[in-house]
Amino acid sequence: MQAQKRLGMQTMKLMGDVQIVGSASIAGKKEGEGPIAGCFDVLVDEGHWGETTWEKAESKMQKEAAALAVSKAGKSLAEMNMLFAGDLINQCICTTFGIRSLQIPFYGLFGACSTMAESLSLGAMAIDGGFAENVVCGTSSHFASAERQFRQPMEYGGQRPFTAQWTVTGSGMAVLSNEGQGPYITHVTTGVVTDKGIKDANNMGAAMAPAAADTLLAHFNDTGRQPDFYDLIVTGDLGKLGSQIVRELMQMNNVTLGDNYNDCGLMIFDLIKQDVHSGGSGCGCSAVVLCGHILKELQKGTLQKVLFVGTGALMNTTSTQQGETIPSIAHAVAIENFKE
Amino acid sequence: MQAQKRLGMQTMKLMGDVQIVGSASIAGKKEGEGPIAGCFDVLVDEGHWGETTWEKAESKMQKEAAALAVSKAGKSLAEMNMLFAGDLINQCICTTFGIRSLQIPFYGLFGACSTMAESLSLGAMAIDGGFAENVVCGTSSHFASAERQFRQPMEYGGQRPFTAQWTVTGSGMAVLSNEGQGPYITHVTTGVVTDKGIKDANNMGAAMAPAAADTLLAHFNDTGRQPDFYDLIVTGDLGKLGSQIVRELMQMNNVTLGDNYNDCGLMIFDLIKQDVHSGGSGCGCSAVVLCGHILKELQKGTLQKVLFVGTGALMNTTSTQQGETIPSIAHAVAIENFKE
Repeated sequence: MQAQKRLGMQTMKLMGDVQIVGSASIAGKKEGEGPIAGCFDVLVDEGHWGETTWEKAESKMQKEAAALAVSKAGKSLAEMNMLFAGDLINQCICTTFGIRSLQIPFYGLFGACSTMAESLSLGAMAIDGGFAENVVCGTSSHFASAERQFRQPMEYGGQRPFTAQWTVTGSGMAVLSNEGQGPYITHVTTGVVTDKGIKDANNMGAAMAPAAADTLLAHFNDTGRQPDFYDLIVTGDLGKLGSQIVRELMQMNNVTLGDNYNDCGLMIFDLIKQDVHSGGSGCGCSAVVLCGHILKELQKGTLQKVLFVGTGALMNTTSTQQGETIPSIAHAVAIENFKE
Repeated sequence: MQAQKRLGMQTMKLMGDVQIVGSASIAGKKEGEGPIAGCFDVLVDEGHWGETTWEKAESKMQKEAAALAVSKAGKSLAEMNMLFAGDLINQCICTTFGIRSLQIPFYGLFGACSTMAESLSLGAMAIDGGFAENVVCGTSSHFASAERQFRQPMEYGGQRPFTAQWTVTGSGMAVLSNEGQGPYITHVTTGVVTDKGIKDANNMGAAMAPAAADTLLAHFNDTGRQPDFYDLIVTGDLGKLGSQIVRELMQMNNVTLGDNYNDCGLMIFDLIKQDVHSGGSGCGCSAVVLCGHILKELQKGTLQKVLFVGTGALMNTTSTQQGETIPSIAHAVAIENFKE
């Protein structure tokens, strides 16, 4: 028996009912000084946000973003059948502590910075498969909680190489439903773990770029679409170097990414003025750019068809210390204002 | 529009085609000296299994278990549409490094010791929803990689309280398909994060028991089934204390768990002879008990109807150091030899 929604090796075509009916974004001070600052629902001026630790502040961001997204969808928490979320912190505590008071049936994810796309993929399948009417999908990151876990104590003030990215402080959450006025999630392309041997944890854009290119190629092959089908193809978060590598890798496969290609890590900050080197990163980066900026543009109609490609670097500090390379993954979700 | 497969608040009833067509279990030396030692496909005598680190040995277990499960299902890796997996180690590296060479489209999960049940839940939905023909679901844990990450350096030789559990070394993987001869996954009950205020990371059975009871009650309420419907109701991994608390919590809700109730943490070790205090734990515990023992009993017909309830404690070392309590979750999967 054939799985009737499969297109090719990695892509699924949904039946047409899954739509994004609400979203919310909460972002930090630096994000509130960047080029898309105006799109966020809440700006948090101080890293602790009234909590005693950065991790607790990040948890609060997930909780508040989820509650706000549900409220903006005109729905109640009790109507949510499932919540799909995760984060960067060990054992995803910012998620589990953040969402515990919401009391929504929960599936925990780990996709590193691909989590927003992973949560949308699985949430969309849950609705399209008839398992849920409404689900919440999202993630978060926090510059300070990530920095001290993955790199150095904040007080150390270590120098950052120019290939490094700046972890976004923020949380984005989206509510998917089987009823509404769109936009629709029409296709989901599942990523394969890709590892081209990059070992430098300060150059994750280069590590993740091959995964992004692999998933983009699979998406175009499986759907028969070309890059110019979309108003926006957006990876998150490869930064300046990684997104340039994606362009080159695609070109080597005879696929040209035009001016409609961008990266969430380039959109959220002014790279020069804000001194963030290669751009933004962290689960929260693509989450707030999608839930804050892109979904609003779809609603306004300035964008009609978007391919959202979350990218994640799947290493930890132990694997880096053990001399391992950085495996990466990318998941793609097609979001369109009209059904085919 | 109603999601047609929902039963009550947390449970989904599948259409009847999702079946477990292959499984494999790899376990360590101590597990190979326990009461169900004979059921495992591979026993690994030494913690490094030819690798240079425990984490790499755990990765190898996931890779070999996945490949063996696919082979035992009479299928090829290329026929696998998706792989759902995760583990306990920070950023789930034992999974991502383990499965990267398999090149199967991958969704990373974090459900702590509930991961086997979570992966089966999402894998079953992927097939039942028409998104996949074949998927691989599984997880792993390793006593030494977990111990040094969550507790003390192995060389420290810390004393363990009697409420502590022993992390199982092993990996279990199952192949689900939309064609075969059963057993069938018939129902999935999604857990809600539950936190009753337990703070002792050496007493995770007590922390997880309320989550298990909550999901069991939801399952019985949603399906209208009674505990005696099942030949085996098995939690994993609450250990001796936690499973006793589940019995008491269920009794307080006027539901009696009879002799058909057991716990994977009690089944894998001889608690007294093997000096494991409250029993086994770790993602690998319920994974190898299911993939090694329970699925074989279903195949033999000594079991016909099983309710498999994976339980996870969702804290990390940072949250414990910050004085936080331990949120927990449990996901239930009904596995039956015959469709209704």
